[in-house]
Formats: sequence, structure tokens, C-alpha cells
Amino acid sequence: MLEYIDIDYIPNDNDIVCEYMIEPASGVDFQDACTNIAGESSIDTWSDILTLGHKLASTLKPHVFEIDEISGITRIAYPTALFEVESIPQILSSIAGNIFSMKLLNNLKLMDVSFPRDVINRYNGPKFGIKGIRKLLGVKKRPLCGTIVKPKVGLNPKDHAMVAYQAWTGGMDLVKDDENLTNQKFNPFKMRVIETLNMRDKAENESGERKMYMANITASSCSEMIERAEFVKEQSGEYVMIDIIPVGWTALQTLREESESMGLVLHGHRCMHAAITRNPVHGISMQVIAKLARMVGLDQLHIGTTIGKMHGGEDEVKTLLATCKSSPVAEDRKNHVLAQEWGGLKPVLAVASGGLHPAHVPDVMRIMGQDIVMQFGGGIHAHPMGTTAGAYAVRQAIDASMDGEELYESAKKHKELRIAFEKWGQPAACQCTKS
Amino acid sequence: MLEYIDIDYIPNDNDIVCEYMIEPASGVDFQDACTNIAGESSIDTWSDILTLGHKLASTLKPHVFEIDEISGITRIAYPTALFEVESIPQILSSIAGNIFSMKLLNNLKLMDVSFPRDVINRYNGPKFGIKGIRKLLGVKKRPLCGTIVKPKVGLNPKDHAMVAYQAWTGGMDLVKDDENLTNQKFNPFKMRVIETLNMRDKAENESGERKMYMANITASSCSEMIERAEFVKEQSGEYVMIDIIPVGWTALQTLREESESMGLVLHGHRCMHAAITRNPVHGISMQVIAKLARMVGLDQLHIGTTIGKMHGGEDEVKTLLATCKSSPVAEDRKNHVLAQEWGGLKPVLAVASGGLHPAHVPDVMRIMGQDIVMQFGGGIHAHPMGTTAGAYAVRQAIDASMDGEELYESAKKHKELRIAFEKWGQPAACQCTKS
Repeated sequence: MLEYIDIDYIPNDNDIVCEYMIEPASGVDFQDACTNIAGESSIDTWSDILTLGHKLASTLKPHVFEIDEISGITRIAYPTALFEVESIPQILSSIAGNIFSMKLLNNLKLMDVSFPRDVINRYNGPKFGIKGIRKLLGVKKRPLCGTIVKPKVGLNPKDHAMVAYQAWTGGMDLVKDDENLTNQKFNPFKMRVIETLNMRDKAENESGERKMYMANITASSCSEMIERAEFVKEQSGEYVMIDIIPVGWTALQTLREESESMGLVLHGHRCMHAAITRNPVHGISMQVIAKLARMVGLDQLHIGTTIGKMHGGEDEVKTLLATCKSSPVAEDRKNHVLAQEWGGLKPVLAVASGGLHPAHVPDVMRIMGQDIVMQFGGGIHAHPMGTTAGAYAVRQAIDASMDGEELYESAKKHKELRIAFEKWGQPAACQCTKS
Repeated sequence: MLEYIDIDYIPNDNDIVCEYMIEPASGVDFQDACTNIAGESSIDTWSDILTLGHKLASTLKPHVFEIDEISGITRIAYPTALFEVESIPQILSSIAGNIFSMKLLNNLKLMDVSFPRDVINRYNGPKFGIKGIRKLLGVKKRPLCGTIVKPKVGLNPKDHAMVAYQAWTGGMDLVKDDENLTNQKFNPFKMRVIETLNMRDKAENESGERKMYMANITASSCSEMIERAEFVKEQSGEYVMIDIIPVGWTALQTLREESESMGLVLHGHRCMHAAITRNPVHGISMQVIAKLARMVGLDQLHIGTTIGKMHGGEDEVKTLLATCKSSPVAEDRKNHVLAQEWGGLKPVLAVASGGLHPAHVPDVMRIMGQDIVMQFGGGIHAHPMGTTAGAYAVRQAIDASMDGEELYESAKKHKELRIAFEKWGQPAACQCTKS
């Protein structure tokens, strides 16, 4: 290996900067580990190869410019010339590829990556973003709300569409398929899209509100994925959803390319991410995935709730929210966030989903703000009075929160909200002193 | 949640069976954790939803049929009717999706999955397999050997082709791009393919042996990936390689579909897998990835070496080898392998790569047999006499091993092998009693 540690180096506009958390194997010197990570993720290999000339190294070599042996945190700057910068798979093959396998490490986590403006400018980013989605739905300020049709799988297209209709007429803006519902025999994709969009029309007419359906186009080939998206468009759908990790980055970049002319809003479900992101010391952080998702151009992305059934604390969710929405994003050492300019790339609308019910609304809004989608699955369909009543309860909770009214006050006026509290418990504010 | 634990249940031909290793969060009952995993990965959610009828559940519900609270090992059978069985992304969204995020778990690992014959039959498997590749190369018995052009990135197309030529004329059968070399400015894809295949022709003419080049077609969109594959074919290439985890499963299934008519051998580089597979208690095992790769139809797959620079012990490599080659694969409880019928699906040629040098040859062959590709990067290019001599040393080691000759005997006759040992150390057999 050549020498890559250069603490005096200051990254510039031609560098992609990575922050890693490194745990060397027993007996391995920390600096040796850093050198090997830098080399293996760029130009070098384990033995001193004769074909690696100094001229080549002088223009392409990475610089390890920050090392903290106690925390394991190390920052490496890679010249952009190393990369096919418009290819997420190629970037990952370098900065998040072989290095996870190296015997001289016990653990390694890619915490964040910061891209210079020239790289960011190669990406489309979201087509709609937060403003575009709000305009489409005609909802100016309040959080958007949606449901996942439940059970996750098993309903036939007509029953699926009926559950969607009940949720829409109860006040939901959005209805989505669940992550594992694609094109099964009991519920073929095309029949489901036709039936559900028919019921969407009915719900729009009856409610006077815009209603939208996010059909899951996750598929076994890019052509099938795009065909499903085109079918949604032909049937006058506005949205599609995709399981971003199971389909992978090449499919996502393909979808975004094709969606430019189709004009569909792209909703990203992050199922399977936690196989990679959850271990605090090994893998790739959700922060990296969220950043790549904004570059590629998903309009919506699941980032957790802090509150529901899924893992993810308040700091993590706030950090992801900033990555989705802010421009620029400021450095945040505590939460392992590198500074990031976003250029003209639109913000991603963050989605809170997983185990939410109406009493969670004020807390989710306090933590995540109003520019979010809140999704309720069991939290409306398991309402003792049924799906429509569950949806009413959610809208009652959102309306009260927007008006600055305590939920327990609203519940006095609204039976659906009161019964939701009886089933799932009171909102946090009620449990302390006010009730 | 409904009740999914059913210890008396015996899986049948309509079940997909998963083995998980489960570590519940503190205070969570193990059986509750199992029930929640089974429900979340199929039809259920966290609250008792009214839309989940018993009729639906009776045909689609999963069965937790084995529980071992001490080891954490649990087996769940899912009816195939739950799935879009020809879609790897949909299958993963179910059995390896949201469940990794659940708060009621500390850790979860998908150890293996077994597919019934009806599902296996929906997949192509490898087009060439071991026999097809041996026929193409005209190599009947000995292990195939190849190199990765080094440095990993940085050479221009002409220099890249020259390094390839040196390796081929030294005796390598195969030359591959490294995982992070795709289409960079210093080495554009098309120019590299043209130059390298020209040098392949020259090496074939001079050596009288078949020589093949594995061009890395990892790309940012499926159309670009297929275009690169078509270009290789037009230029009379026989092989392409792809970074299977960074591109993702939808791209892989697309590639296999398209490669059927192109007739290209598909080589799968597994970089990034260890972000998901390496933690022993969380994520998805390499066993699962290898199995899916055989179903989709990669002809070659990196599975580790046990010996070189990358993580992965002998048991793991042997298990992966069986999954690549054997039919049927027998159950192996110790190594978390479920029984698997492979129907007519051809075997995958396993690739040993990562830190190998000539002295490793006898051990790799002892562990992995002869039906493998051994790849040497630094292990030939860092040979003190250069790449061609490094390649000679590898072939000398392989020839000796095939003849049952001790390597230290062969080294007496062959300067290249002797110098390789001087640089990197003796083969294991020499270090004990015989020398």
C-alpha cells in the first residue's frame, strides 16, 4: 500500500468526502487500517503492485485527513476523477464495497458521504418535491396523511379498493399498497390499479378533496417495473411506490430517468434497509441511503417515526429529515452528518410510517414538523368502528394539532378520536397533568 | 396479531421455508417475537385489524414450526401464494423487509431460505454453468485462473489492455476489471473493451489457449447496463461482470433475461455484501445471496477464499460452494443450511478471490476442489519479476497441485514460483516438516 494518511489535507470542490467509523481487528494498528480502507476503496491492493505508478497515484489517490482512534471516526477525501460520478452503483462499489469484508477490520460503518456541487448537479433530484406534491393535492399547510391498505397482502382487488375508499372518505389524502404487495395471483397488479383508481374517483367526487393512490411497482425486471408505472399513468394515476432496497440502485436510477417524462410522483419504501443500517458499528447508515435517494430523485421517503413499532430515535429521524428537506445541510458532528450543498435539487417529502395511531399525531408533528406524510395502517384499520372512523380520528387529531388544540379537548367533541384513545391510549400530553 | 406458532406443522411443497436467528429486545417474550416476525413478513400488522378475515388467513398465514429460544433459531413456513414468486425483490420485501426494523427485536438474521420445486422452476438458473464455461475455455479439469487488472482504477485503456495481455500470456485464462472500474474518464468503457479484446486476440494467437475478458458492465440504469453488455457481444466478448449488490436484484434479473439471447457468461462480484452479511447475528447471510444468485442465473460468483485478505471461514466457504454446485443440497443444521432441490438449474462456478498469491493454491484446491476460478490481483502484479512472471508462478502452482507434486519441489524447477515464495512466503505444506 502507498501512504494515504495526510492530516494536513483540506478537501476541496473535487473531492467526495466519506466519514467512516472503524474498528480494527485485534492487533491491527489503527492507522494501518485507515490506509488499507483508503487504498482498497480506490486505487490500491494488499501487495505493492508494480503497475501502480506514482504519476497515477498523484492524481487519483485518496487522503485520510481526519483520524480519531478513540471514537473510530475517520474521514477520507476521494478525488471525483476516481468515479463514474453519475452512477450510484459505481460510487457504492468504491466507498462501500470490498472494504466491509476486510479481515483487518472487526467492524466498519459508512456514516455519511458528502458530494461536491459538480456531482450533485449530475443528478435530477425529486421532480415534484414538497411544493409540487402539496400543489397536486391542494393541501397547503397541514401534514399529509395516508394509509397502507391492510391486511398487507391477501385482499382481492375489489376488497382492496373498498378499504382504500373507506380510508379516503374518512379523510386520508393518500392510499398506498404495502411493501410486499406487487402482483400476486389473489390481487393482480393491473386489476388492483383499475379498481382502486375507480374508487379514488368516487372518493374525490364525494369528498371534494384530491385523493391519490400509490401503487407498488416493485418488479423483477426494469421493463416490468416501467410497464407497471406506465399502466398507472394510463389509468390516470399520479403516484407510484417502490421498495428501494430490494430493487436496488440501478432500478431506482432507471425509474427516475423514465419518470421524468411520465410525470409520476415517486414514493420510496425503505423496507430491508435495517439489514444494512441498524447495527450502530457496521454497515451503511440510513443517512447515506436518504442522501442517495434525494440525489436519484425520490419525491417521498420513509424515514421512521421515533414513536411507532420501528427502530429509530428522535436524533436519527431529525437528521434524516434535514437531509431530505434542507439546503444546505450543516455539518453535525454529534450525529455524523457532513456538510452538504444541494444546489437546485428539490427537497424530499419525509414519510412517518410504522405503528402510528391517532394519539401519536401531536408528537410526530412536534418532532418532524408539518411538511411530512403521516401514514397509518393498523392505526386506522383496527379502529373499533372501522377504517373510515379510524381515518376520521386521524384527521381530527391533525386538525386539532394545527389549531393548537389539545387532543383531549378535541376528543370530547369527536367520538372517533375518543374511541381511538380508548383503544390505543391517550396522547402523551394527556397522560401527564392536563386531563 | 393472529396466532402463527404451530410446532406440529410440517412444511410441504407449497411452502417457502426460512430460518431466522432471533434476538428479542429486553423484556420481549421469544414466542411473541416469533409471532410478530411471521405476521409482519406476511399478512398481519401490529394491531388487530378488522380487515384481516379468518378465511384469508386460513390460506395465506405463515406457520412458525420450529423454535429454539436458546440458539434463537426459528423456522417459518410461508405459503407460496403469498408471493410474486418470480420476483426476487418481492420475496425479499416479505421475508427480509420491515422485520429488520422492529423495535421488539435487538437483532435478526435471515440464515437461509428454501424454495419448493415450483418456485425454482420459474427461474432460469445459469445459462452456462460449470460445464458450459469449461467447454468455452477448453479447460477440462484444472481450476480456472484469472486476474483482476491492477491498479483497481487509474490505468488508461491501452495500459489496461497491456496488463491484461501480460497476465494472459503468463497463463491466466480470465482477466477481469475490478469492481469499481466501470466507465471513468481516464478509462472509458468502450475504448477499454476494444483495446482489451484486441490484446485478448493477440494472447490467444500466441498462447494457443482460449482467453477471456470479463468487462464490468455495472451501470446507473438498466438500459446503459444492457447497452454495455451488447457492446461487449458486438466486439466478440464472451463474458460480462456485474457488482451484484450495488446494482440490485431488479437489475440482475433484467440482465439475466437479456443475456439469454446474447449468450454472455455472467460473472457476479459480491462487493458490498459484507455490509449485510458479515454480522453473525443481524442481516442476511451470504448463503441467501448465493442461493438467489443461482436462481437468477449468474454463471460465476465470488464466495471467498478462507485464506486471503477477506473475511470468511472454511465452513462458510464450503457451505457456499455446495449451494453453488450441488443438487440437491442437504440440510446442514450446524451451518444453518436448509435442504434445497435445484431441479434442472445448472451449478454456478465459484470464484475464490481476494488476497490470493501462488503459495495459496494447494490450500484453496484442498478446501474448494478443482471446479473453481482462482483470481489473483496483487498476487501476480506485485511479483518482483512483473505480471507475466506472476502469472507463470500461478500456473506452475496449479500444474504441480494437479500432478500431486509438492509446491516446494516445483519451485526448485521454476524460478517464478520460487521468487513468489520468497516474496509472500511458502505454501503451508513447506512450513511444517517437508522442506
